[in-house]
Amino acid sequence: MIKVGVLGARGRVGTEVCRGVEEADGLELVAAIDAGDDIDGLVSAGAEAVVDFTHPDVVMDNLEFCIDHGIHAVVGTTGFDDARLDTLRGWLADAPSTGVLIAPNFSIGAILMMRFAVAAAPYYESVEVVELHHPTKADAPSGTARRTAELIAAARREAGLGPVPDATSTGLDGARGADVDGIRVHGLRIRGLVAHQEVLLGGPGETLTIRHDSLDRASFVPGVLTGLRAIADHPGLTVGLEHFLEID
Amino acid sequence: MIKVGVLGARGRVGTEVCRGVEEADGLELVAAIDAGDDIDGLVSAGAEAVVDFTHPDVVMDNLEFCIDHGIHAVVGTTGFDDARLDTLRGWLADAPSTGVLIAPNFSIGAILMMRFAVAAAPYYESVEVVELHHPTKADAPSGTARRTAELIAAARREAGLGPVPDATSTGLDGARGADVDGIRVHGLRIRGLVAHQEVLLGGPGETLTIRHDSLDRASFVPGVLTGLRAIADHPGLTVGLEHFLEID
Amino acid sequence: MIKVGVLGARGRVGTEVCRGVEEADGLELVAAIDAGDDIDGLVSAGAEAVVDFTHPDVVMDNLEFCIDHGIHAVVGTTGFDDARLDTLRGWLADAPSTGVLIAPNFSIGAILMMRFAVAAAPYYESVEVVELHHPTKADAPSGTARRTAELIAAARREAGLGPVPDATSTGLDGARGADVDGIRVHGLRIRGLVAHQEVLLGGPGETLTIRHDSLDRASFVPGVLTGLRAIADHPGLTVGLEHFLEID
Amino acid sequence: MIKVGVLGARGRVGTEVCRGVEEADGLELVAAIDAGDDIDGLVSAGAEAVVDFTHPDVVMDNLEFCIDHGIHAVVGTTGFDDARLDTLRGWLADAPSTGVLIAPNFSIGAILMMRFAVAAAPYYESVEVVELHHPTKADAPSGTARRTAELIAAARREAGLGPVPDATSTGLDGARGADVDGIRVHGLRIRGLVAHQEVLLGGPGETLTIRHDSLDRASFVPGVLTGLRAIADHPGLTVGLEHFLEID
Repeated sequence: MIKVGVLGARGRVGTEVCRGVEEADGLELVAAIDAGDDIDGLVSAGAEAVVDFTHPDVVMDNLEFCIDHGIHAVVGTTGFDDARLDTLRGWLADAPSTGVLIAPNFSIGAILMMRFAVAAAPYYESVEVVELHHPTKADAPSGTARRTAELIAAARREAGLGPVPDATSTGLDGARGADVDGIRVHGLRIRGLVAHQEVLLGGPGETLTIRHDSLDRASFVPGVLTGLRAIADHPGLTVGLEHFLEID
Repeated sequence: MIKVGVLGARGRVGTEVCRGVEEADGLELVAAIDAGDDIDGLVSAGAEAVVDFTHPDVVMDNLEFCIDHGIHAVVGTTGFDDARLDTLRGWLADAPSTGVLIAPNFSIGAILMMRFAVAAAPYYESVEVVELHHPTKADAPSGTARRTAELIAAARREAGLGPVPDATSTGLDGARGADVDGIRVHGLRIRGLVAHQEVLLGGPGETLTIRHDSLDRASFVPGVLTGLRAIADHPGLTVGLEHFLEID
Repeated sequence: MIKVGVLGARGRVGTEVCRGVEEADGLELVAAIDAGDDIDGLVSAGAEAVVDFTHPDVVMDNLEFCIDHGIHAVVGTTGFDDARLDTLRGWLADAPSTGVLIAPNFSIGAILMMRFAVAAAPYYESVEVVELHHPTKADAPSGTARRTAELIAAARREAGLGPVPDATSTGLDGARGADVDGIRVHGLRIRGLVAHQEVLLGGPGETLTIRHDSLDRASFVPGVLTGLRAIADHPGLTVGLEHFLEID
Repeated sequence: MIKVGVLGARGRVGTEVCRGVEEADGLELVAAIDAGDDIDGLVSAGAEAVVDFTHPDVVMDNLEFCIDHGIHAVVGTTGFDDARLDTLRGWLADAPSTGVLIAPNFSIGAILMMRFAVAAAPYYESVEVVELHHPTKADAPSGTARRTAELIAAARREAGLGPVPDATSTGLDGARGADVDGIRVHGLRIRGLVAHQEVLLGGPGETLTIRHDSLDRASFVPGVLTGLRAIADHPGLTVGLEHFLEID
C-alpha cells in the first residue's frame, strides 16, 4: 500500500485525484493539503508519494520540501521551463532514490495519440493537427497540440521527408491555421466540448486519422494513478508520463 | 427530351457533364463544344439549354450568345461579381422566357449542409466551419466554406444571437482560423482528400455536426442535371442551385 | 414569471431540471416533489406547469392530478403506448385550456438531427443510422435511433425511393446491424461515451453525415425549458418537442 | 533496377499496379501478363519479382512456376488457407533464396490502424470495430475488420483484460453487430463510400479513435511497391505486409 499525499487537494483537479486515490487498489490517501494547510502534514502522515496540482508560484517550494524529505512527486502543475527542470535535477542529485515526474498531460489517450502520430508520420506526405476545446480556454492552440506538432515535425525530419505540400496562394489570414515547425495546427472553441484532438495524415488515395476525446475531466485520473504506482521505480527526474507506459 | 449543349466539353469537368447528360433520362447531348470550336454549333444542333464550365474570360461572351438565341444556361464557371450579374440581368430583361442559373456549387450535399447549418444556427451558442481539401487547391478557405459562414452569421444576427464565445487571449497567429463575419473558418490541405466540409455547432452539453464529403469529382453531376431539368421553368437570373430544390 | 413544479425532483434528471428552472429567466421553481412527498403541494404552491421525470408506474396518476387541477405538464417519463395516450386525450377533452407535452427526447440537437435526416433522405440512395452509448444502457438500438430510422423509412417511401442497395450475400450474423423498416441501425457501447448518434446518407461520389453528441446529461435541460415556456400556448396533447420548435 | 512482372495485368487492380511500377523509382515493368498469355513470358523477360492479383483458381499454379524459376512473388490474390500456405512452404524449402509475400491487405494505412489498435487495446475497457464500404461488397464484415477484431481480442487476452462491458438486455437482432472473438464488429454499406474502418476504444471519461479511409483504389499501390522492394531480402514465406514495415 503506497501512502499518498495530495497537494492542491481542494481544487477541481485535486478533488478528482483524492477520490481516485481513495478508490484505487494499492494506494492510500494519507494527507489532503491545500493553500493555508501546513505542508509538514505530509511528513507526519507518512506520505511516500505526493500528487501536486497547485500553481506555478508554489510548486517549486513544494517540490523542494518533498525532495528534502525523500517523498516522490507526481506533478501536473504547469510552468516548468528549462531553468526549473535544471534546478530540480540539482536537488535530485542529492536524493538519488527519490523520483519526480513532471507531466504536461496525464491522459493516457493523449499520450497514445502522440505516439501513434509519430509512428505514422514517416509514411504520409501530409499531416495536420486539429484541437477542439470549450470556449473558456485561454490559449490556442493547446499545449498538447503544439507538442504533437513538434513531435511530428521531428519524426518527418528524421525520416527525410520534405515540407508538407500546400499550394495555397490566396485566401484569408488564419485560414490555414498556425504553423508549428512547419505543421499546421487548428484550434476550435465550441460550447459543449471538453478536450479533443485529431491528427489527420494523408497520402495518395488514403488518410489515417487518430482522434482523442476527453469527455470528462476525470479522464486524467488513470494516468495519475499509473504515475504513483511507477514513481518509486523511476528515481531522478522524468518529464512525460509516456516514459512510464509500455507501448511498442 | 431536352436538347443539351456543353461548353467546355473537353475539360475535366465538362467530360463528366457530357457523360452524365448522355446517361440521363430525358436529356440528349446535341453539341459538345470547347475552345476552338464554333459556338454557332449550338444553334445548328438545336440546343435548348447549355451547361457552361469554361473560364471567366469567355463565359460572358458565351452567355450573351445563348441569351440572344433563347438558349437557357446552367453555369458552373466562376468569377461572377455584382457587375457581371447586373449585366446578365440587363440581357435577360430583353429575353423574358430565357433562364440562366449561376451556381457556385452544384453538389446537392453541399447545399443541404448549408441549409441545415442555417436552420440549426439559432439554437446554438457556438459554431465553426472546417473545410478539408487536397493540397493542390489554391484558395483557403474554400468558397463554399466562406459562403456557409456568411449564411450562418446572417442567421445568427436575425435570431438576435450575439458573438460566439471565445476566451482566447494568448497563442499563435492563425490558430483560431480565419474570421468570416465573426464565424471562424479553418482550412486543411491533406493529400488523399478530395473536398470535405464540416459545420460544428455547440451548446451546453451537446454538439451537432453536419458534414459533407465529396469523394469523387462526379458528385456534382446530379446537381447539373437537376439544373438542366428545371431551368426552363425558371426564366430570368437565378444564383444558387438551392432555389431549384424542394427542401423544407 | 411561470410557476413551475418538478415531479421526480430528487432523481438524477430531476435534480438537473430543478437547477435549470432556478437559473432560467421567466421561470420560478415553486415545488420540488419526489416519492413520499404529497402531490397536493403543487396546488398549495400555485404551480402553473410541472415537469415530470418519474416512473411509468406513477406518471398516469400524476398527470390525472395535474389535468384535474389545470396544471400544464411537460413529461419526460417513458412508457406511453397508444392506450395511455388515448386516456390522456380523454382527460384533456374535459380540460380544454390545459396542455400536456409527452416528449421521448428533450434534446434539441437530437430533434434537429431527425429533421435534417428526414429532409435529406429523398436525395440519397443509401442511408444508415449508428448510435453510440455508454455500456450500461439496457436497450439496443436506442429509442431515438429506432425513431430516426422509422422517420427516414417513411420519407423514402413518400419520395418513391426503393430499398437501399445492399449486395451482402455472406458474412456473420449481426454484421449489418438491426433492420428497422428496411433501414439498418447499429448500436455501439463504449465506456467513456454518453449519448451519440450519426445518420450517414450517400449517393454517387458523396456522403452527408449528421451527427449529434450529448456529452453531458444536462443537455436535455434547454429542451425542457423550451417546453415549459411554450406549453400554455399548446392546449391538448402534444407528442414530441419538435412541434414546439420553429424549424423550416 | 528490379525487373517486375505483373500477373493479372489487365484487371482493375493489375492495371493500377502496372502504372505504379512504371512510375516508381528503382522498378522496371518487363512483363504484363493476363489470362490467355503465356506465363513463360516472365522468364524470357528476365522478371526478378512478380505481383499476382489474379484468382484463387490459378494463383497456386502461378506461384509454383515462379518458385521453380527463382522469381520472387508479391501476392494480393485471396483464398489462402493453411493447406495452401503449407504447400507454399514445401515448395520454398527447395528454393531457399526465393521469397513469397502473401498479403491480405496492401494498404499501409490499414496495417498501421491494426498495429495501433493492438497497441492501445490493453489500456481500454471497451473497444468496437466499424467498417464502412460501398454497397456492392458481398461480405460483411470485411476481412480487414474481422482480422482487426481477432488481433484486438488476442491483445486483450494477453493483457489479462476480461470481456468488454455490455449491459444490453433487450433490443433488436443485429443491433449490437457481429461477435468476433468477443469484439463487436459493425458493417455499413453506403453508396459513395469506398473502403473505411474505425476502431473505437474507451475508458472512464475518454475515447481513442483510429480511422482509416481509402478514398481511391490506388491506395494499395504504395504497399505493393514496398513489398517489391523488400521481397528479395525476405526469402521464404511471409504472411502480411506488416512484417516488411518498420513501426515501433
